[in-house]
Amino acid sequence: MKIDFDRAVSLLRENDCFVILTHANPDGDTLGSGCALALALKKLGKKVKLINNDVIPEKYSYITDMVENDAFDDGFVVSVDVADAVLLGKEVEKQYGEKVSLAIDHHGTNRLFAKETYVESDSASACEIIFLIIKALGVEIDKQIANCIYTGCSTDTGCFRYSNVTARTHEIAAELIKLGAEHGMINVKMFETKKKGFVKLQAMCLDSMEFYLDDKACVLTVTRKMLEETGTTDEDVDAIVAFSRQIEGVLVGVTIKEKADGIYKVSVRTHEGIDASAICSAFGGGGHLRAAGCSFSCSPDEIKPQIIKEIEKQTGALT
Amino acid sequence: MKIDFDRAVSLLRENDCFVILTHANPDGDTLGSGCALALALKKLGKKVKLINNDVIPEKYSYITDMVENDAFDDGFVVSVDVADAVLLGKEVEKQYGEKVSLAIDHHGTNRLFAKETYVESDSASACEIIFLIIKALGVEIDKQIANCIYTGCSTDTGCFRYSNVTARTHEIAAELIKLGAEHGMINVKMFETKKKGFVKLQAMCLDSMEFYLDDKACVLTVTRKMLEETGTTDEDVDAIVAFSRQIEGVLVGVTIKEKADGIYKVSVRTHEGIDASAICSAFGGGGHLRAAGCSFSCSPDEIKPQIIKEIEKQTGALT
Repeated sequence: MKIDFDRAVSLLRENDCFVILTHANPDGDTLGSGCALALALKKLGKKVKLINNDVIPEKYSYITDMVENDAFDDGFVVSVDVADAVLLGKEVEKQYGEKVSLAIDHHGTNRLFAKETYVESDSASACEIIFLIIKALGVEIDKQIANCIYTGCSTDTGCFRYSNVTARTHEIAAELIKLGAEHGMINVKMFETKKKGFVKLQAMCLDSMEFYLDDKACVLTVTRKMLEETGTTDEDVDAIVAFSRQIEGVLVGVTIKEKADGIYKVSVRTHEGIDASAICSAFGGGGHLRAAGCSFSCSPDEIKPQIIKEIEKQTGALT
Repeated sequence: MKIDFDRAVSLLRENDCFVILTHANPDGDTLGSGCALALALKKLGKKVKLINNDVIPEKYSYITDMVENDAFDDGFVVSVDVADAVLLGKEVEKQYGEKVSLAIDHHGTNRLFAKETYVESDSASACEIIFLIIKALGVEIDKQIANCIYTGCSTDTGCFRYSNVTARTHEIAAELIKLGAEHGMINVKMFETKKKGFVKLQAMCLDSMEFYLDDKACVLTVTRKMLEETGTTDEDVDAIVAFSRQIEGVLVGVTIKEKADGIYKVSVRTHEGIDASAICSAFGGGGHLRAAGCSFSCSPDEIKPQIIKEIEKQTGALT
């Protein structure tokens, strides 16, 4: 059931012990939301456990180290930035998937898996909502909480770069900086620190770059061998996918990723005017207008002409 | 002579014809400032010429195309985001270098070359100052002006990423978005669009990456041949320099750049605790704490051990 802002605030005010769930493969927004909410509830004298299915990447320790889990048996279960119970991760979903009393989220696609759900789909990050909730709870936002919230505001917008940013995003960032958020340090950690292996992988992927259709399409290929040689993972590849579309004149960026089982996954990213999901649905895949994917069980050399032909159909009107 | 904000506003209000100068090798902040000021003065019925020494990169056309130069003989000369007359570029300096009546700038290093200078050295961009000036002039900020100012606010802060960002920067960005600034489009143009040649150069530079001192130092090498093969320029190399310091664990990033005359320029970027200018001054160079440079007339293979030895001295205390 969808609820309004005041009801969400009331539920947090009324309860005393909270289990806060963040999504698996945690990012800055879910962790920032979870940690900020945990710190705020503790300030109100409530008990809190913050739970994640996976190992938290070290780079977030400046926020996650701030939260110590309290001991209690049953608590009111809240999820933050989680659009679907399955995104909680296997273990957490098993234990808590059907016990979530309140979901606070900014995904328009939220599956309403919780008992009550507060969604603001036009919010750039879940942290923006958490900021407003904490203020409504009457908790003073200190430097630690400000750092948590800033982290989500910044990471979910590519550091205020994406078009999901609204005036409110900047207004909140301004307030957070006034409250002591260490934005310089946070952005260095989040955006200016790359693993050596990732940079090597990046160089290899850029080397593999091929252009088609008068440079309107760009194809990157990432093999298991490249991942092994650089000590990187599929997660690192996700960050590479964005590059394919960033080259001047390129309308469609394609990344061919060899998976562990010999299957190749293809990610398609497009600029305005070209439907990525239409390209991928020709191969049984799908997704969104600007970002979609599909799978192949043949080699990259066999994949490329097929996918290029489909792109040509979609871009035909533009050429 | 340094003047205050009100005096700067008065000078703009009192005069009728303006020559606005932006710095050579123009960037988003100088162009955004110049165009915004030009558009605002035109709205007050004044005449304006916007002058730059160089060819304006195409990517800024969405702001520079908005300004049409008026015809008049003598005007009140204003420079924006220019710290020194020499930065106006050869031709413009010759014609206007000694005729600048008002300089509006955010560089603490401004050489006070103008008759009167208004500097806010803690402003993240010149555009922030221009925003406040335009408001003080009583001009309504429309979408075009908002786009100009947003461009400077965004580009001079790495899209709100650097530590020069203040709460005011975000407050102004919020206002600009409310006034219609097309932040999504601007950031795609400024940050998500790379030349094909640049990406190839980037791959080559990352391939050239070498690590020293237990991976605390990273050295990139850029040769003339690499620039020729990729059709890139020294300006593109400037964007590569930042990469050297972005790798996890690297405290000192070094970029060795072959210049046209066989000289090698070395750029040093450091993280907190290591003095880049101390490293470069050992070779007759200099600069700032975090960014400095020096020159060599020997080969990269001869440069590397020398510079690494000097870095070792500076990082000694840390290892």
